[in-house]
Amino acid sequence: MMNDSKNRLASGILPLVVMVLSPDTRKETVAWLLKRIREKQLVGGAELLVDPLASLAEEKENTNIFLVTASWKRILTGAEDLGLFKEYMDGSMRSFTSINSHNFKDFHGHGEDFFSMAECQYIVKHELETLRAKDETHVPGYTQAKLYPGKSIIRRLQSKKIMLQMFPLHNKEELKRLSFKWYKKVKTSLQPLDDIRHYYGEGLALYFGFLEYSTVALIPLALLGMLYCTFDWENYDKYVFFAVFNLIWCTVFLELWKRCSASLAYHWGTLSRKKVFEEPRPGFHGILGFNPVTGREEPVYPNYKRQLRIYLVSLPFVLLCLYLSLYVMMIYFQMEGWVLMLYDRDPTFCTKLFLYIPSIIYAMVIEVMNLIYRYAAELLTEWENHRLESSYQNHLVLKVLVFNFLNCFASLFYIAFIMQDIVLLRQNLATLLITSQIINQFMEAFLPYWLQRGRNKKIMMELPLTEQVRLEIDMSTYLGTFDDYLELFLLFGYISLFSSVYPLAAVLVLLNNITEIYSDAFKMCNLYKRPFSDPAANIGIWQLAFEAMSVIAIVTNCAIIGMSSEVRAYFPNSEMHLMLWTVAIEHGLLAFKFILAFLVPDIPKHIQIKLARLDFESIDALKKSFIRPSFVRSSIHV
Amino acid sequence: MMNDSKNRLASGILPLVVMVLSPDTRKETVAWLLKRIREKQLVGGAELLVDPLASLAEEKENTNIFLVTASWKRILTGAEDLGLFKEYMDGSMRSFTSINSHNFKDFHGHGEDFFSMAECQYIVKHELETLRAKDETHVPGYTQAKLYPGKSIIRRLQSKKIMLQMFPLHNKEELKRLSFKWYKKVKTSLQPLDDIRHYYGEGLALYFGFLEYSTVALIPLALLGMLYCTFDWENYDKYVFFAVFNLIWCTVFLELWKRCSASLAYHWGTLSRKKVFEEPRPGFHGILGFNPVTGREEPVYPNYKRQLRIYLVSLPFVLLCLYLSLYVMMIYFQMEGWVLMLYDRDPTFCTKLFLYIPSIIYAMVIEVMNLIYRYAAELLTEWENHRLESSYQNHLVLKVLVFNFLNCFASLFYIAFIMQDIVLLRQNLATLLITSQIINQFMEAFLPYWLQRGRNKKIMMELPLTEQVRLEIDMSTYLGTFDDYLELFLLFGYISLFSSVYPLAAVLVLLNNITEIYSDAFKMCNLYKRPFSDPAANIGIWQLAFEAMSVIAIVTNCAIIGMSSEVRAYFPNSEMHLMLWTVAIEHGLLAFKFILAFLVPDIPKHIQIKLARLDFESIDALKKSFIRPSFVRSSIHV
Repeated sequence: MMNDSKNRLASGILPLVVMVLSPDTRKETVAWLLKRIREKQLVGGAELLVDPLASLAEEKENTNIFLVTASWKRILTGAEDLGLFKEYMDGSMRSFTSINSHNFKDFHGHGEDFFSMAECQYIVKHELETLRAKDETHVPGYTQAKLYPGKSIIRRLQSKKIMLQMFPLHNKEELKRLSFKWYKKVKTSLQPLDDIRHYYGEGLALYFGFLEYSTVALIPLALLGMLYCTFDWENYDKYVFFAVFNLIWCTVFLELWKRCSASLAYHWGTLSRKKVFEEPRPGFHGILGFNPVTGREEPVYPNYKRQLRIYLVSLPFVLLCLYLSLYVMMIYFQMEGWVLMLYDRDPTFCTKLFLYIPSIIYAMVIEVMNLIYRYAAELLTEWENHRLESSYQNHLVLKVLVFNFLNCFASLFYIAFIMQDIVLLRQNLATLLITSQIINQFMEAFLPYWLQRGRNKKIMMELPLTEQVRLEIDMSTYLGTFDDYLELFLLFGYISLFSSVYPLAAVLVLLNNITEIYSDAFKMCNLYKRPFSDPAANIGIWQLAFEAMSVIAIVTNCAIIGMSSEVRAYFPNSEMHLMLWTVAIEHGLLAFKFILAFLVPDIPKHIQIKLARLDFESIDALKKSFIRPSFVRSSIHV
Repeated sequence: MMNDSKNRLASGILPLVVMVLSPDTRKETVAWLLKRIREKQLVGGAELLVDPLASLAEEKENTNIFLVTASWKRILTGAEDLGLFKEYMDGSMRSFTSINSHNFKDFHGHGEDFFSMAECQYIVKHELETLRAKDETHVPGYTQAKLYPGKSIIRRLQSKKIMLQMFPLHNKEELKRLSFKWYKKVKTSLQPLDDIRHYYGEGLALYFGFLEYSTVALIPLALLGMLYCTFDWENYDKYVFFAVFNLIWCTVFLELWKRCSASLAYHWGTLSRKKVFEEPRPGFHGILGFNPVTGREEPVYPNYKRQLRIYLVSLPFVLLCLYLSLYVMMIYFQMEGWVLMLYDRDPTFCTKLFLYIPSIIYAMVIEVMNLIYRYAAELLTEWENHRLESSYQNHLVLKVLVFNFLNCFASLFYIAFIMQDIVLLRQNLATLLITSQIINQFMEAFLPYWLQRGRNKKIMMELPLTEQVRLEIDMSTYLGTFDDYLELFLLFGYISLFSSVYPLAAVLVLLNNITEIYSDAFKMCNLYKRPFSDPAANIGIWQLAFEAMSVIAIVTNCAIIGMSSEVRAYFPNSEMHLMLWTVAIEHGLLAFKFILAFLVPDIPKHIQIKLARLDFESIDALKKSFIRPSFVRSSIHV
């Protein structure tokens, strides 16, 4: 059944993944690649089904577009290789194995439709990426594209720009159903997270889960903020109450999310799944050596060199950029001072217009600096030569995060703690929040909607396969959840860092989140190529970033309250006592936060029990299998 | 070979574990227990060799003393059940399996001497503790000692006081060799940690490893302290330097210990060993239900009830005790004030004597309070009804720790921050350190040495087995490393919390640690029954306790330096600025500590690689075994 590649589409097997090779790829290269993909696993092939798109429609544009898919049998062995977790008969999640496939829930017949299309695409991608060179010394036809035994062929083709794209196909029917459930009807219910996960994989579903969670969690804060706004509670007691409520909210919010996320990840089977061995990223280079883990020959790059690059080049560069950004900010405040002086001296219409110039220039400079910095951060992180995509991503995220944090909040810190002007702080906070929100909504939803009006109708239309594939090739690539998380992170900063000053922030962020859900859902369904699913178990480095923000929030809020004139009135004679009290309360809150984080288990009890049961059973099985070897042998035949 | 119990000692198999039953245990109970222990595993027995001690020497004292041991074959299957890690041919640590036993280093013949005596005793203990009731409803002869299918028989016998003791036997020759290497010769080298582990197991070896590590780490600090003492550097700059050095030292000390401990635990095979399913502790009770993990029938006790007991009873009780302790301290300071006033008014010999009375009373009251509190803490933790011994221990340690911390340091905090008397603080610190050291050395080394002079000669002498067993039964039981760690913890507090005041503390603690090594080694070898080995992977909750102490140390040191008159001279006009700077530097140090903890990997790179390789190979093996099931079948026959 492995070689029925002629009629595989007619036979009802969906095409899963599109590979686009450069149009001028040599014939021998193409032939070699297809042969290697089709070859049996025993001889080192991927044992997948692959066919050129052109053969289906006899078009003449780029003939180097290929559709890859796999038989159900191949999907099952692939899932086993990857150790995918599925729901078992008893409701627990277990690593899928063919041997007892029929004990898994929803496994019928030969396992058709047992795995979702996103999972199948993930499996095919993994099998393609682990298709390794055997005795080839270079890609046939390209002597400069070196290969060595064990090198991932696809990674080499990608790094040499012979393979231009590899992406999974959309499924029009599923997409229609999903988008209807997700954002097309006015809902009172929550997002269809399981459906999102089914279609886009765990990484993206966790992002939407987090977005939804934070939206719901914001409701009490927003209600309280509205009360403050409505009744104009501008005295100190109320603000202190709001700040304390906010700080506790932040801590509880993050702690409960960990449990929530563990719960989602458990039911999606990614919580306890062992990471498969990660392939080096396409850009990684080094001298040929032996990987100490796999024993395979592959490029190695000494860790100390990378550390040197990070600590001697990247870190000073980042610090320099932070310094520059602060310097620009200081110039901005000086300019503000000048124009204000100018206006005070000679209050004409012209000087009044001048008042806006520093802000506009500052905003533009920040935007430009952000762009340049982002570019430089990518270059630097690439140059650090990380072996794994995950470690590359972490280092990039950290760099961009710190810079964005400073750009967004440094001016607010300056106003709050150097100028100590609470009214100005409140004004600035409101302006920043509202403008950034308007710009975001415009850039993220209306603009793309308007630009893509024509095309997005097409993607939902019934098109022949060839046309659909060509349409999707032209769609833009979704670059991951990074920017979406960054936006949430900055908004979280606005509500937590200066909550005691501007309670209405929570309301604005809540509104923003609600529209964000719709606009993000819309752009995922209409604007982008389908991304490969990413079996994430949590939101990763972002959890850390949010926790760090909530720690900083405790410090800033305590300082702002300690500085407020109302509090000072309580300590008329001794500033020292005021400071001592402020610092003591701040330390108390920090201690409370860490103790709470320590006391609340990250994984809910009922899931801990399920995980423990799995552990217990596997140890038990091992025990039995060794005491009675006959048991193992017979169980293999079951 | 399983039933040669008659001549098992003659056959060269060492007796491993001693079981002491109550002298008035009924004959039928003894017969039933021995039968169950000897029975084959297939019918639910432990398949161990057991014989009464009396049969060897025909004595008539307590005839219910039994020696348990196991054949080498049984030891091997037991090690497999437990998943013990041993060194493989390639130098990595792997879970032992009989199938490829010959690929393990030092495995010769049938595996005699492959496991150390301590490991064999641990295996026998585990097999005894997992000897479960089948259809018995109670212990034969004791209708009140209820049993149900799956209940651990030994645990029931222990909780009903039918079994009085179960302990592993010393091995005189090994012990002699170990004690010679350890403390009998004047050494320039370090402790024989591998030998300690070989004889006492990983838990105790990790304690001695930590003791040694902290002793070595103290050397630079002590040298610096000596310089201060010699040259009488009493000005502020030098103290600030010492404090900063101390704070960095604390952080680096703890971070490096984590790596050190991971390294030791890896080589001892406990780092990645899966915990076997832990049996409920003997005192645990509840209504009969089903364990959600194992599915076995056993007593269950709802978690929420335990949480209620902890938060509504234990926590308020602990807080009340802390309050009481503070109250007693305040009374002490009041008394101090009175007698000082009395002496000032009328300075006679009599009133001079009065000066010492408050300290003496306070010291005695603290000692009594400590005893009562310890007793109450044990009662409370018992009453909280923890299912596992480990969770019981953690809760007990936490309770005792907090109270001891307050008792030791509250008066110092009071002197430092309320009285702000640095000279008195230094005096008190010195007095506390020196007296506690003298008392410790006396209580821990000289007193027991003197008391046991007669007996400790005996234990090293060549005695017939029966006499040796009876001798060991009378030795006191080692209650675990708790008190030893507590002592180290408090000493760590003395050097870190107020380091900027009294640099000589490090020298005193260093001296104390050196004698501590010898006295602890001596008492382990001479005074106590051999403890069962405890396969610990790290020092557990103590790591957390030390880290918490180092965080508190940052706060206290910053505060003391900020308060010192020399620093105040730098900010002559504004206390506010001084405070701000102090707080800012303190936050900076805290941030530095957390970032460092985040950046330094807890496990050294080369061990991470070895663990990753093991993971990779096991996934790879799983993959291969499922693609070619015939491979599995044949490999079992190897």
